[in-house]
Amino acid sequence: MSLINALKWRYATKKMNGQIVPQENIDQIVEAAHLAPTSSGLQPFKVIVISNPELKSKILPIANNQSQITDGSHLLVFAAWDTYTEERIRSVFAHANAERGLPASATADYENMLVGAYTNKTPDENFQHAAKQSYIAFGIALAEAALLGVDATPMEGFNPAQLDELLGLKELGLKSTTILALGYRDVANDWLANLKKVRRPKAEFVIEYK
Amino acid sequence: MSLINALKWRYATKKMNGQIVPQENIDQIVEAAHLAPTSSGLQPFKVIVISNPELKSKILPIANNQSQITDGSHLLVFAAWDTYTEERIRSVFAHANAERGLPASATADYENMLVGAYTNKTPDENFQHAAKQSYIAFGIALAEAALLGVDATPMEGFNPAQLDELLGLKELGLKSTTILALGYRDVANDWLANLKKVRRPKAEFVIEYK
Repeated sequence: MSLINALKWRYATKKMNGQIVPQENIDQIVEAAHLAPTSSGLQPFKVIVISNPELKSKILPIANNQSQITDGSHLLVFAAWDTYTEERIRSVFAHANAERGLPASATADYENMLVGAYTNKTPDENFQHAAKQSYIAFGIALAEAALLGVDATPMEGFNPAQLDELLGLKELGLKSTTILALGYRDVANDWLANLKKVRRPKAEFVIEYK
Repeated sequence: MSLINALKWRYATKKMNGQIVPQENIDQIVEAAHLAPTSSGLQPFKVIVISNPELKSKILPIANNQSQITDGSHLLVFAAWDTYTEERIRSVFAHANAERGLPASATADYENMLVGAYTNKTPDENFQHAAKQSYIAFGIALAEAALLGVDATPMEGFNPAQLDELLGLKELGLKSTTILALGYRDVANDWLANLKKVRRPKAEFVIEYK
């Protein structure tokens, strides 16, 4: 299926049927997020893959009791760095240089520029920037799920502070940004399943300068 | 090509060869962005498609003279709502209800909830939220470009205030968030073209709760 057709097929599934998404598909969706581009290649976030039923039950009330949390088989929680630090930045380039067989000096100037720029900003400014990067991966993970015929519900409707507390994210220097519930639509019980997909008129969405 | 393989093929192209991306492919990339999911379906951003050479030349210095601005054939500028307003929110639902043959009352409670929530926030909080939605579409547009074999450079390295001024975005209630240059890689002159693609080790990127 083309990506365009997959995007037309998908919708924010409101009711899932409990069927389990194969691990192979979960791995592909996570891999798509892992390959997503990010600013300076820093990948300033993690993806937390949750299939544990007790943990999902604890997340349910934190996410407005949206049933996809427990009726989906897996949850992906995207959690961004709470700030950029020199250590985090240098660690990414140390790894990349090693993988590319380059000396540490290859990226020294660029690293110094980034360290200077980010450490001059507030943690909240840095978190907002990191969060945006996580949304790129979130979009690409969604796209991959649709291509695999896996239903997904992208969610911002949860209490990030409570979820961070439950998952111990503060200790990891992370803050949750979005959740992606994965499973299969329960068409008979999903009020949204048969409603026409609507997007804003193209003329309101696009401006062209030819 | 699978999306995973397309994501492995793509990279942040540093030098493009001037070849023109067919209009059909541009349309598909914009369509992918248009189909991207957003919070409450509000699609709080526009995509500005620029192929005009003079305009691209004016953008070049605003974007740190990155040559892809002019060596790529098209630029997509993603520009998010500067804030959420009651009029903007109600307009989206009026259109959706009309498309679905539903009465205006169908979404009244939900609209009222959204209007109350967003108008209680500062314009900057609202812009940050809208910007994040644009990153979802940005990621999906990138993915579609890769699937079509179109090279792309995702860019945050530009002066948003100057770009907004040049494009008259303030008058439209928009603020630029990202640029996607589209074209074809000039392998012989692109220092990044043959470097190994590196991502953070999977063990550092994923946390699992089974």
